[in-house]
Amino acid sequence: MIGLGNVGGGTLSILAENSAEIARKLGFGLRVVAVCSRNPAAHALPAGLAPALITSDWREVVAHPDVEIVAELVGGTTVAAEIVEAALDAGKSVVTANKELVALRGPELWQRAEARGAALAMEASVCGGIPIHAVLREGIAGDRVEALFGILNGTSNYILTEIEQRGASFGDVLAEAQRLGYAEADPAADVDGYDARSKLVLLTALAFGVRLAPSSVPTEGIRRISPIDFAYARQLGSTIRLLCAARRDAGGLFVSVRPSLLPLKTIMAGVRGAYNAVWVRGAFGADTFYYGRGAGPLPTGVAVVSDLMRVARELRPAPAHRVPPFAARTLEDAEPLPIGRQVRPWYLRFRIKDRPGIIRDLSTILARHDISIDAVLQLPEQDKQDLPFVITLEAAPEAAVRAALEEMAALEFMVEPPLALPIEKAV
Amino acid sequence: MIGLGNVGGGTLSILAENSAEIARKLGFGLRVVAVCSRNPAAHALPAGLAPALITSDWREVVAHPDVEIVAELVGGTTVAAEIVEAALDAGKSVVTANKELVALRGPELWQRAEARGAALAMEASVCGGIPIHAVLREGIAGDRVEALFGILNGTSNYILTEIEQRGASFGDVLAEAQRLGYAEADPAADVDGYDARSKLVLLTALAFGVRLAPSSVPTEGIRRISPIDFAYARQLGSTIRLLCAARRDAGGLFVSVRPSLLPLKTIMAGVRGAYNAVWVRGAFGADTFYYGRGAGPLPTGVAVVSDLMRVARELRPAPAHRVPPFAARTLEDAEPLPIGRQVRPWYLRFRIKDRPGIIRDLSTILARHDISIDAVLQLPEQDKQDLPFVITLEAAPEAAVRAALEEMAALEFMVEPPLALPIEKAV
Repeated sequence: MIGLGNVGGGTLSILAENSAEIARKLGFGLRVVAVCSRNPAAHALPAGLAPALITSDWREVVAHPDVEIVAELVGGTTVAAEIVEAALDAGKSVVTANKELVALRGPELWQRAEARGAALAMEASVCGGIPIHAVLREGIAGDRVEALFGILNGTSNYILTEIEQRGASFGDVLAEAQRLGYAEADPAADVDGYDARSKLVLLTALAFGVRLAPSSVPTEGIRRISPIDFAYARQLGSTIRLLCAARRDAGGLFVSVRPSLLPLKTIMAGVRGAYNAVWVRGAFGADTFYYGRGAGPLPTGVAVVSDLMRVARELRPAPAHRVPPFAARTLEDAEPLPIGRQVRPWYLRFRIKDRPGIIRDLSTILARHDISIDAVLQLPEQDKQDLPFVITLEAAPEAAVRAALEEMAALEFMVEPPLALPIEKAV
Repeated sequence: MIGLGNVGGGTLSILAENSAEIARKLGFGLRVVAVCSRNPAAHALPAGLAPALITSDWREVVAHPDVEIVAELVGGTTVAAEIVEAALDAGKSVVTANKELVALRGPELWQRAEARGAALAMEASVCGGIPIHAVLREGIAGDRVEALFGILNGTSNYILTEIEQRGASFGDVLAEAQRLGYAEADPAADVDGYDARSKLVLLTALAFGVRLAPSSVPTEGIRRISPIDFAYARQLGSTIRLLCAARRDAGGLFVSVRPSLLPLKTIMAGVRGAYNAVWVRGAFGADTFYYGRGAGPLPTGVAVVSDLMRVARELRPAPAHRVPPFAARTLEDAEPLPIGRQVRPWYLRFRIKDRPGIIRDLSTILARHDISIDAVLQLPEQDKQDLPFVITLEAAPEAAVRAALEEMAALEFMVEPPLALPIEKAV
């Protein structure tokens, strides 16, 4: 592993903390043989990792005889390119998280890898938190992509969402995002669309097999979008997102990066805050949509580790390189935990014949089971002889809720047994 | 290929129509050697396919010396199991779309495949239109799944969405869905949660590496959900979906299939109509979300063809089995099409000093460029000296819109040049 910055650090902690799961999925373990950073003494390695070599000279990592796969996590395009080339030339496989390098020289490096019999993997290089490489390369490989849309820059999506939700101006939201560390002091790459553009160029290579020059992509940022635009968009049943688009037409691709109106009812319009999303339309399969964090040490680290696992498998002879269909090579038979123990907030909807004292009777039963009421809701103008109303509960074990419900169902004013639905706040 | 029903038919048309793209991605082509159906004469094979063998005896397909991969697309668990076992025992790899068979005997069949040195792939067996196998098996393999939530039954999600949007009763919506062919005459598997439950059991095997008995999953359907529940849910900032949940807790998994309240602001709440979605929470990566058609001949066919491609690659020696990072083994350099030719509807937002005749002046310019106005919007109580208002355009070539915008920007009443955003209706 070369580079112990954010992504390198995230990757190492996953390799350390998730080693049992990784070995269970692969049928063998991954060993960190050598790590390199400019100042190795500055990094405390996670417990459980004991590399044979800790160095500030990346050439020693590449040359180490036990190293089969080199993870290039230094970023940039100069030293990183040297590392990747040296590793491939030594017949070693490479995993990289380097968007710039892949955008600039990806296809050439892949050909170099093929010529040397090595593998080159780059899941982490674009949309770190979304496994879009695996999807395009394998999951829907049988399709022919007709169009690809993306929300590919988390910072600009965060800013647009704040303008939308709070009615604040672009300048105010940007200043606040900078204060909170969500936006860079120089925000141009994010808010003027250049970061999104380089990701679109990469996704276009993945999805359509073509290489575009970033400068050939019509690109427009979000600086001019104001709360009034969201107000008008809403009148049109729409919202505004910085949309990256690539669509196949007779004879070629239209590509663009620019703020666009999207219907509120589409799943894409629901992408809020610092998230990324990719929408793919295939010629055969229907539309599919992928959503997750765009970056971050751990989401990107997951992509690096997943690539390491895949390449490690590919380096082994058949049938070890065959990918098992399940999470583990053998499955454990399991019983689910008794659902009664699960603690959730609840929605209880009653249909009752109205009379005084109903809330008192129900709350007495709930209190006896040690369950707290969160809210009581009643819509106006309902039929008093068959009155629907709702009690929401604070988080409580399901067994207690069920026991209370059974007692409630027996009450003489119930038109039917209460309907009980769990409330999943965190999905 | 054994079985020429819906999925078999979809698979064959993709293999025929997408053969060039498939060969470009793989570096070699896929050949349909033999097809089998109960009544082969009843099926017209797509042009371009000329199997050496067309038969009603599946044993001939398995025995054919040129067959390397058997696609089992007959469904059910009796003949299908015989086919898969016979193929694996003959050392041939198998691709299956058979949810029931995989749920019942998946792990055992995978072990049989391993013992025979064959591959077994089953992307199409659950959520046909979402490449969730590829995601769990490879894309986020490095993570440890902590929780998985799904909307896994398109019919029940369609019914819930209709109740939500139209305020119709469950019974009315179901009857209509049956009339339209969206729901079966016996809707129990869909509306009582059993279909979703068997999918959850499969996803639990994929994500957690455990095997659950379907009967061990607490399951509740949607028959009792009424428009009043959606009204109350809305008061709580929520909606209702038939949620499949599996979450890891100390010592085990909680699993359930039942209608649940979800916050409207989550991406999961935006899953409407006959779509499926899976939400995965990893211990390391942040949440990711996957969305697409749950079934259908072509979406499921894409999954089958993608599996065929992967297995075909895995059957070849290194480095052919290495998965290329891009859509093609070599990339074409390409220029995007001139964006001016792209035809889209547009949103134009103006800031003007108000005076009579403004719409006339603007519409005159638009008419000269052969552009039609769709709507004019103006919010009340705006500053007359800096009045923001909007014109939406019907679909027009971007070059014409840009030319009109340039003329408009020169008009004396403009406070700033108009803001122009494309409207992406179909994303």
